[in-house]
Amino acid sequence: MTKPKTMLPGHLMITLLVITLLGAAGNGGPAPAADPMPSWHDTTAKQAVLAFVERVSTPGSPDFVPVAERIAVFDNDGTLWPENPVPFQAAFLLDELKRMAPEHPEWSDNPALAAALAGDVTAVRQAGPEALAELLAATHVGMTADEFNRRVRTWLDTARHPRFARRYHDLAYQPMLELLSHLRERGFSTWIVSGGGADFMRVWAEDVYGIPPSQVIGSYSKLRYEMRNGTPMLIKEAGIELIDDKAGKPVGIHRFIGRRPIACFGNSDGDLEMLEYTTINHTPSLGLIVHHTDGDREYSYDAHPQSTGRLVTALEDADARGWIVVDMARDWKTVFRPEP
Amino acid sequence: MTKPKTMLPGHLMITLLVITLLGAAGNGGPAPAADPMPSWHDTTAKQAVLAFVERVSTPGSPDFVPVAERIAVFDNDGTLWPENPVPFQAAFLLDELKRMAPEHPEWSDNPALAAALAGDVTAVRQAGPEALAELLAATHVGMTADEFNRRVRTWLDTARHPRFARRYHDLAYQPMLELLSHLRERGFSTWIVSGGGADFMRVWAEDVYGIPPSQVIGSYSKLRYEMRNGTPMLIKEAGIELIDDKAGKPVGIHRFIGRRPIACFGNSDGDLEMLEYTTINHTPSLGLIVHHTDGDREYSYDAHPQSTGRLVTALEDADARGWIVVDMARDWKTVFRPEP
Repeated sequence: MTKPKTMLPGHLMITLLVITLLGAAGNGGPAPAADPMPSWHDTTAKQAVLAFVERVSTPGSPDFVPVAERIAVFDNDGTLWPENPVPFQAAFLLDELKRMAPEHPEWSDNPALAAALAGDVTAVRQAGPEALAELLAATHVGMTADEFNRRVRTWLDTARHPRFARRYHDLAYQPMLELLSHLRERGFSTWIVSGGGADFMRVWAEDVYGIPPSQVIGSYSKLRYEMRNGTPMLIKEAGIELIDDKAGKPVGIHRFIGRRPIACFGNSDGDLEMLEYTTINHTPSLGLIVHHTDGDREYSYDAHPQSTGRLVTALEDADARGWIVVDMARDWKTVFRPEP
Repeated sequence: MTKPKTMLPGHLMITLLVITLLGAAGNGGPAPAADPMPSWHDTTAKQAVLAFVERVSTPGSPDFVPVAERIAVFDNDGTLWPENPVPFQAAFLLDELKRMAPEHPEWSDNPALAAALAGDVTAVRQAGPEALAELLAATHVGMTADEFNRRVRTWLDTARHPRFARRYHDLAYQPMLELLSHLRERGFSTWIVSGGGADFMRVWAEDVYGIPPSQVIGSYSKLRYEMRNGTPMLIKEAGIELIDDKAGKPVGIHRFIGRRPIACFGNSDGDLEMLEYTTINHTPSLGLIVHHTDGDREYSYDAHPQSTGRLVTALEDADARGWIVVDMARDWKTVFRPEP
């Protein structure tokens, strides 16, 4: 049954290989590797990350970790892309509410929905992931999973960030994209562990971050399977099943990965527990916090009362825990990925 | 920072490569591929499986499917290993109950627990995955995830199947192990989607099936993260969060994989919905049912009232749906994997 693969004749293949190898090794040794993270300044943060990756992925190193255990987890909002002026999923939610409002006059009786429809960004920002997920569920209960995917895709193609006037998924952080690639080249599996909605992130995470849907862990609501007119359907239902934030993050990690990560990247107190779970009494391991210090190029916040992504406890703990703190203004040459 | 890798001198490496290539290609072309599924008789079931895998994984084929979408899902009990005289996790549960009973005199007041402790196999068998999961939770609430893993490992090393007198995980079906390997060689990711407990299966699924913990989808209960004496812990709690059986299987697939599989392997009506979800209005796709017809070498059942793994509706639907039905007695040369 097996169709033989097309092969070059043996001698031609060898000639090609010899040429290739002479090019690579003929000058006395391997060429120096290109910098895998060129958007990072050569500061201690970058050096510590590269040294860790080298230690755990070099055979014979005392800290060598087998590929199956090279698991790296990343928060999303504020770690891989911005979370201001509101988390991007909240922007999607607001746009969806406005789009659907004409069919739902009863929404004006609900204070949270009314505030959102009136564009009260502060109320939305302070609502937290649970309230946001509830709002999102309210707008999407009864919708099929496929239809939800289409809505997210349409929104991504049309909506623009209010300050940067670019599509939201064009605002991924270039230094973090380089870090993701470098980890994967060194045998890591890379996972998102975010308070955001899993179904929302899965629509674009593969294109933007190279992370497939099965490696996107997020908050999620109930789902129902049914056959409708002879076609299998998954229908979104009311009720949150996992808030993948704070102490929910180690739970999500166990549920979906089933192993402790050895590297964890976050930016807020919502990531404190997964930083702990990854690094405490667990060697070798790496914890890293992206500190938003760059109001000129992005945003500057940590304990600012009008921002999500509050970073107080994790920043206090960082030194004692050995977590690397990235200072965006100092450590990153560029912030956003280039225009496509 | 980067430590140069140890390399052979260029000319020695080339010589080695030339020798290797001459060995492989010098006889004029690739050797015919060995039979990837030698434990299967050469019947229509085997031919249909091999033809499907060939069609979707051969570049240029009209049914070619990219690697990222080559997703195959497998039920576990009755599909990859037996489920008689009771599902193996029920045997674990009974042994755990007996082990723990002296510390829990109050269990004698609970009819289900008392029946289980008295060895009433029929009651346990008929309890269904939800009741089993509740019993399991009852015995393991408050236990850390690490301690649970140790319990499962200890049980696997010591318990023996009552009929075959082998360790339970030595009873994996050899033909299905070959199928799993063949699918992976052709770029498929292979997933378990089982009503059994995820944490129970993850302990041994990688060793036995080559399926890592992150690709084991099963039923699961609530979990709590806490820091205890300065160490991060995950504690098992009461309350089922997902019964990954029947209509719960497509839900589990969406939750964990986020894509529709193109191949589904099951053996009972508990797999009906995931067979539907995989194959209906979704081309190319493959559905396969393992039919337990071999009372001599394994068990013969489908509608037998004293067995789990009831297979009635899915078997009736198989013809119209185009699902392959494997007759264990006719299609498999051997049943269990060889003694290690």
